[in-house]
Parts: sequence; C-alpha cells; structure tokens
Amino acid sequence: MTLSASHDFSAWMQDIQARTETALDHCLPVKSLMPTRLHDAMRYAVLGGGKRVRPLLAHAAGDVFDAAPETVDAAACAVELIHAYSLVHDDLPCMDDDTLRRGKPTVHIEFDEATAMLAGDALQSLAFHVIAAPGLIHDGARQVRMIELLAQASGSRGMAGGQAVDLDSIGKRIELQALEFMHIHKTGALIRAAVLLGAHCGNADDAALEKLAHYANRVGLLFQVVDDILDTEADTATLGKTAGKDEANDKPTYVSLLGLTQAKALAVEMRDAAHHALADFGSKAQRLHELADFIVARTF
Amino acid sequence: MTLSASHDFSAWMQDIQARTETALDHCLPVKSLMPTRLHDAMRYAVLGGGKRVRPLLAHAAGDVFDAAPETVDAAACAVELIHAYSLVHDDLPCMDDDTLRRGKPTVHIEFDEATAMLAGDALQSLAFHVIAAPGLIHDGARQVRMIELLAQASGSRGMAGGQAVDLDSIGKRIELQALEFMHIHKTGALIRAAVLLGAHCGNADDAALEKLAHYANRVGLLFQVVDDILDTEADTATLGKTAGKDEANDKPTYVSLLGLTQAKALAVEMRDAAHHALADFGSKAQRLHELADFIVARTF
Repeated sequence: MTLSASHDFSAWMQDIQARTETALDHCLPVKSLMPTRLHDAMRYAVLGGGKRVRPLLAHAAGDVFDAAPETVDAAACAVELIHAYSLVHDDLPCMDDDTLRRGKPTVHIEFDEATAMLAGDALQSLAFHVIAAPGLIHDGARQVRMIELLAQASGSRGMAGGQAVDLDSIGKRIELQALEFMHIHKTGALIRAAVLLGAHCGNADDAALEKLAHYANRVGLLFQVVDDILDTEADTATLGKTAGKDEANDKPTYVSLLGLTQAKALAVEMRDAAHHALADFGSKAQRLHELADFIVARTF
Repeated sequence: MTLSASHDFSAWMQDIQARTETALDHCLPVKSLMPTRLHDAMRYAVLGGGKRVRPLLAHAAGDVFDAAPETVDAAACAVELIHAYSLVHDDLPCMDDDTLRRGKPTVHIEFDEATAMLAGDALQSLAFHVIAAPGLIHDGARQVRMIELLAQASGSRGMAGGQAVDLDSIGKRIELQALEFMHIHKTGALIRAAVLLGAHCGNADDAALEKLAHYANRVGLLFQVVDDILDTEADTATLGKTAGKDEANDKPTYVSLLGLTQAKALAVEMRDAAHHALADFGSKAQRLHELADFIVARTF
C-alpha cells in the first residue's frame, strides 16, 4: 500500500465513521421522547464511540456493487445496533461484569441494571425496525432475505449462541477447534452479516455473496485473533476497556492456546486468505482489502 | 352466546393452542444442537405453557380475511416468541425478581441468570427469523411491513418502552392516564401486533387494518385490567405465578387506582367497545368477538 492510498483509506474511514454516527443519531429516538431514561440509555450505549468496524465492512462491500451509500447506512446501522446491544448485555454483572467500555462507564453503571437490560432489548428491536424500513431496497423479497440474514446472525446459531459457548468455556481447557466455533458465532456471524448486507444493498448475486462470505469468515476470525493479542499487549487506557480481562477471567483465547508468536502468525495467515477470497472483484474491492490490512495492522 | 357456540369456541381455542405448540416446537432449535444449554433454556421458556392469547388473536384476525392458517402460524409464533422473551427478562432479579412462572421455576432459577438473559435475547432474534421466512407471504413488500410492525411493537416505543415506564412507576402515585400509557405499550403493543399480523396474512387492506387496530387497542387494555383484577382476586396456585405481587411491589394497577368494582366496570366497557369496532366484519369476526368475551369472562 502506498502512502497516498493509505491516506485516502484513512479519509474514507473517517467519512464512513462520521456518516454512521449521523445515521445512528437519526434512527435512535430522541432523548425527550417517552420513556426518556430508556432512550437516554440507548443513545449512551450507541453514540460517540466505537470503531464502527461493521459499518465500515458494510460500506466497503456495498462499494463492490455500487450500492447507494444511503441504503448501506441503514444496513450498517442495523448491524451496529445489534453489536451495541450485545455489548450492553455482555457488560452486565451476570455476564462479564465490566464497568468500563469505550472509555466510559458501562450502561448499567451509568444508569442501572434494569435500564441496561431493557436498553439492550430495545436496541435489538430497533435494529430490525431500521432494516425493515419499507422501500429500503426496491426488491421486497430481497429485503426479507436481508432481515432473515440479520436475525440468523444475531440469534442462538449466531452471536447469542457464541456468547453462550463463551460463558460456558470460562475456566475450561478447550481445543482450538472449539475456540474457532465460538468465535465464528460470537464475533464472526455479525461481521459476516455486515459484509453480506452491504453487498445485498448493491444487488449482489449468489455467487458473489458466497465469495464475500469466505472473505468475511476470514476477517471475522482475524478480528478475534487480533482482539486476543490486544487484550494481552495493550493497556486499559489504549483499549478504552479493561485490559487483561480474558486472562483474569481464565478465558481461553488464541494467545493462551497458541502463544503470542503463533497467534500473530495466524493473524497474517487469515489476512492473506481474506485477500485471496476477493480475487474476482478487482479494484472494486479495494476498501475490503484495506480493511483486512487495517485490522491486522492494529497489532504490530 | 349459546351453549353450542361456546363449546365450539372452546374446541377452536384448543385447536389453535395445540397447533401453536407444534409450530413453536418446530421453529425452536432442537436441544441437541449446540449450544445445547441455551437451546434447552429457550425451549423451556416457550413450550408447554401459556394461554397463547396472542396466537389466538392472530388466528382470529386471520379468519376475517381467510388467511392460510399455516401462514398465520408463523406470525403467531413470532409474536409469542417476543412475548416469551419479555417474560424471561421480566422475571430476572434486576427486574421483577420472580421465581415462578406458569407453575414452573422461572428460567434464571432453572438455569442461571446469564443463560436466561441470552435465551431472551436469542428468542427475540428468533421471532424476527421466523417472520422473515422467505416466501412466507407472496408480497415481499407487505412482509417487510409486517416485520416493521413487529419491531415497532417490541421496541422502546412499544413493549420494552412500556416495561421501562412500569419499572419507573413502582412506588409512585400515577394518574389513570399514565397507567394507560404504560399498558398501551407494555401489553397493548404486542396484542395489537398479533391482531394486525394475522390480518396481514390474509391481505387485509388499510381501512380494515385500522378498524382492527381499534379492536386490538380495546382488547389490550381489557387484558391488562383483567390481569390486575386477577392479581388481586386469584391465588398463586390458580394463576401459576405469584399472586398479589403488584400490591406487594407497590405497583400501581387499575384496581389500586379505581377500586375493584370500578375496574370491573371498565373491563365491561372495554369489551363493549371492542365488539363495536368489529361491526363491519359481520360473522367473519366471530372468533374476535368471542375472544373479547373470553378475556373478560376470566374475572367473573
């Protein structure tokens, strides 16, 4: 990657992050609307933070098929709302019991547990509300497919299922295969949904969707490997969330299973496989390529 | 109502309850599927109990427009899954902290808090998965409208919002108007969704949907008034959940606000208004009429 391409990528990222923030702001109910405390908590959970990795992936995939950015905004918001709700619930005392997220007190600390739970619940509903906007795309049947895809990625055979396996794995010795199963669901399912929904916004055909699914699966694992490496290497201030938590909680990670060097090698391998999956799309897939590089670059 | 009509209604109810149980059983993941403990908890929360009021309403509304019962089953399951998830979360220690539901230990007692939260989350996703089944109805754009309707009914301006207001009202003196606002959201929104989704399955037009919305709004309040009366009058064994809980929790109810006699009068008034809203549908709306009568009959 040349310096100018890299500069261009960084400007693109900032542009997508800014438009995602605006789009999220618009789809979240205003604070003054009843019930105000709930709406306040929902906005607190979603706005003003986050790397917006999933919206970036959705827009990058939409670019491959010349999707209208306004349409991708809705799909990207839906995925980000699901992600945000999962963080709120994940931080609750009965789950990870965390007090810090994106450099701010977690929702149940800033508000209370009941409000945090309801805010998470309502954010999930809002995600489906946003992606079910009538006329979002011309083809109603395709829009139904998109909603089904998001529902599957969020549920017991997707993100929520991955969290259940994660909880169950604490303090246990698990194999690399089981760790992959967990992450394919916990993180991977929603990353895959982001990529595929972005592509759907540009009317991608099934063959193209399949190739993008391969890309997304690699990027999903890559993202988790990198997260595990960061949890080991970075400090709390840099992360904006409690560092070293996985080890403290005796959670199996790629680092605990493979060691740091091997985990980094796996990250590089995943990145290369991600690039390979995009071979047919040429320069249209530039942003998807750059995102794979960017995710792995965070660790080195 | 004649004795034979009443017998016929009771047989119809049992038929709908049985087919709903079967449909729910089919759309819930089997226990043996990973993650097994989560799937076990989801099935425990949904199957083998409940009056299935919302599925009954969906089928009764579908009947008005000759909807295919198999199509209504999916809509009915989606609404019932949202209802079931809300009960699981509502029973958690940070909310109502209840240990008994439908005569069984609540999900977090039978399993654990984290599993209960994730099971609720995954049940909400499953609801949208079920209603977004490709080809459920012929018209994709209408199906998108149905999904939007369910999302709105579930979220911060629907059920979850009503629960937030409910939480906030504990120990406070609130006006009848505020109590109605709460119930229109907490119970009413999903009852309305059940009726409208059933009607959508039969391609009801907007004028008909509006009349049914009037019916559903009355039935929603009726249902809540009756629930408040039952909480005062019935015992725990009859209810299958802890009786007298509202009073113990210092929760405002129609009974605490109006007194028992007035609350019963309000129930009768709501029932009559519900009947009136169905005037244009003739005998096609027989089941909807009978359901309004049935709900109020529980109290006398």
